[in-house]
Amino acid sequence: MRKEGQQKEWSGVEVYVASRNIFYAQSGGVTAVINASACGVIEAARKERKLGKVLAGRNGIIGALREELIDTSLESRKSIAGLRYTPGGAFGSCRYKLKSIDESRAEYERLIAVFKAHNIGYFFYNGGGDSQDTAHKVSGLSQSLGYPITCIGIPKTVDNDLPYTDNCPGFGSVAKYVAISTLEAGLDVASMAESSTKIFVLEVMGRHAGWIAAAAGLAKDRKNSPPHIILFPEIAFDKRAFLKKVKDTVNQVGYCVIVASEGAQYADGTFVADAGLKDAFGHTQLGGVAPSLVDMIKDSHGYKCHWSVADYLQRAARHVASGTDVEQAYAVGKAAVEFAAAGKNAVMPVIVRNKGKKYSWRIGEVPLSKVANVEKKLPRSYISKDGFGITAKAHRYLEPLISGEDHPQYKNGLPVYVRLNNNLVSKKLPDFMV
Amino acid sequence: MRKEGQQKEWSGVEVYVASRNIFYAQSGGVTAVINASACGVIEAARKERKLGKVLAGRNGIIGALREELIDTSLESRKSIAGLRYTPGGAFGSCRYKLKSIDESRAEYERLIAVFKAHNIGYFFYNGGGDSQDTAHKVSGLSQSLGYPITCIGIPKTVDNDLPYTDNCPGFGSVAKYVAISTLEAGLDVASMAESSTKIFVLEVMGRHAGWIAAAAGLAKDRKNSPPHIILFPEIAFDKRAFLKKVKDTVNQVGYCVIVASEGAQYADGTFVADAGLKDAFGHTQLGGVAPSLVDMIKDSHGYKCHWSVADYLQRAARHVASGTDVEQAYAVGKAAVEFAAAGKNAVMPVIVRNKGKKYSWRIGEVPLSKVANVEKKLPRSYISKDGFGITAKAHRYLEPLISGEDHPQYKNGLPVYVRLNNNLVSKKLPDFMV
Repeated sequence: MRKEGQQKEWSGVEVYVASRNIFYAQSGGVTAVINASACGVIEAARKERKLGKVLAGRNGIIGALREELIDTSLESRKSIAGLRYTPGGAFGSCRYKLKSIDESRAEYERLIAVFKAHNIGYFFYNGGGDSQDTAHKVSGLSQSLGYPITCIGIPKTVDNDLPYTDNCPGFGSVAKYVAISTLEAGLDVASMAESSTKIFVLEVMGRHAGWIAAAAGLAKDRKNSPPHIILFPEIAFDKRAFLKKVKDTVNQVGYCVIVASEGAQYADGTFVADAGLKDAFGHTQLGGVAPSLVDMIKDSHGYKCHWSVADYLQRAARHVASGTDVEQAYAVGKAAVEFAAAGKNAVMPVIVRNKGKKYSWRIGEVPLSKVANVEKKLPRSYISKDGFGITAKAHRYLEPLISGEDHPQYKNGLPVYVRLNNNLVSKKLPDFMV
Repeated sequence: MRKEGQQKEWSGVEVYVASRNIFYAQSGGVTAVINASACGVIEAARKERKLGKVLAGRNGIIGALREELIDTSLESRKSIAGLRYTPGGAFGSCRYKLKSIDESRAEYERLIAVFKAHNIGYFFYNGGGDSQDTAHKVSGLSQSLGYPITCIGIPKTVDNDLPYTDNCPGFGSVAKYVAISTLEAGLDVASMAESSTKIFVLEVMGRHAGWIAAAAGLAKDRKNSPPHIILFPEIAFDKRAFLKKVKDTVNQVGYCVIVASEGAQYADGTFVADAGLKDAFGHTQLGGVAPSLVDMIKDSHGYKCHWSVADYLQRAARHVASGTDVEQAYAVGKAAVEFAAAGKNAVMPVIVRNKGKKYSWRIGEVPLSKVANVEKKLPRSYISKDGFGITAKAHRYLEPLISGEDHPQYKNGLPVYVRLNNNLVSKKLPDFMV
């Protein structure tokens, strides 16, 4: 699988010739399909003779700083193909934000030293808003520190909050998981409501934006079917209105299914999850939003309640990934290679929704300077008037993103997920503490 | 779809001739495959000329008491076939336990009145231990109240705690869900551990028996892979040993994945979930076991933790049901009809594991008198010496139960689940308060 010439040692001058290596890193919270993007990068790079091999950062950018570079050329074609079906971050991810060049000059100089030592001319950063900000900063190194580096951002976030792209790879799969879980749990509680549980609360991710919670609305196929209430961070939580809606729903439908963003908050910004609980030592405990809502409902109405916190399960659920999402995640990875080969720099491939009734999409591009640190919230027009549901417009936007199935293979009842060898390239530099 | 002769009015004498109707009820917590059992009952009964039509209780036995009987003969063949793929209880279930005949004579007399009025000669009760106890009591009506009724129990419980059957329909699918969720979340936290989350706790069902938690052990494919700790109700929780194991695991592996039964408890029977939290009014709050464990770990070790409570999601997850489980759930429903047609009474079909290296099974039978109120716990030989994992023996038992996939059809990104018309038979009796 190795390309010719990649093993060659480059001198300082030769760094500027073609076939320089790619540094690829996964950043921030992982998703069910971030490895599909890695698969797109590696498979495309292996075919593209202008580019060198893909060196992946072990645990993201930390791997670059520590000179822990995974040589993906040592992985079999089959293992790389398997990345398309494997959740989590195959090379390790990290939460590590580079500060400005002025504040963290030593780190940037280290990056350049590592890039030089390993003939890296391309920096591919696969992450969300913060990560695209880092990618943008690294793209400034050409000017500020005189090291030529091509930077391509690869979008990824379950939060769907990146601007300029119609949607973010990773979101479609978590949206599908949440919609299906709401549908399934709704059937369960409907069966039990007459003599037992009347309330089910599902807590989903979304600290600042309600995109994931909104996806639960796709499970609603008629007036009274679940979910009956969705709580978004964008809509101030009104306890009285909420409790009234719960009661009205139980009276009318017999039960009530609630999907709540973890970031649901009161008008003053206090999180609903901060229920004022104290432990034996008097420390405030920040529980989940689901148990907090359940406490309110029990106190006020006395209904039997069940609740679930999906947490990592939702963003790791590759077994039920959206086919559209997998394709798009792969496509943005592949596009990064194509952009680099075409000489583009400081850009990020985006998903563009084509006009027309039938959903279709294409890859577009946006400069990193525009993406960095902009957060796209759920528009008010996607939220129903009463603030507890989604509109037809939201439904039209969301539905194609969860469409299509891409079942992994199974063996002995479990999905077959790959585990890479992750062999590190020999270090050439002294250690650097991170 | 209706059979000949079923619409005929029967006189008191004719009640004893062939082609009497079946009363079928779903009982207790529903599962991903209880409707597959209903499908087995209805499809088999439609072919069996000795038996009348299947009248399903609306919300289980409550439907019999209220004379709310769903006429399944009015449902299309396609809808009934769709039950095989639909989670929850299609006719409604209930938590309602009949007391002894001496204590609740009025209820039993009401049952008989309803059975008589609707020419019901067969009572099929689809549920767990409590429900089989009810079925057993109803089977006593022939003697004690002089009404001839054939009683067949149909096993169902995610808890897998019924005796005499190798396993219980419903368990294999929740086991598969838990194993897959553990595998997937494990890959997620492994990616994040270097700079962020080091601990993930998944809370699963199982108040008295640790079968469901044990299934998480199937995700472990090598020494250091997740889950690293499983907490069973059968093993007294030892906080010190637990916290030490967490720390050792993080030191050795870099992160720690914990799967905890909701019923995990201290040696004195106190639930771990009872964390001693008090709300603003000083009321004790019973949180989940997952947040309680996370509080302990944070307090003691300071690691960043994530946690999930699967709750209804796990038992409703038909999208990832076990193929073996679906087949067995269907088979026990079908067997109930065959038993009834063969003149058997007061029995329950069970799953018998055939001898031999390759897994295979057949339907057996057990008298209801033996099943009622016996709870099968996880044997000690299935739990590893240190109490935190499962043995090879448990693995051999569990693996075939999660094997096989039976994907539902999808439309617009969501599984196609049926919703029945659930038309009620006209009432013939005065109201009865339940």
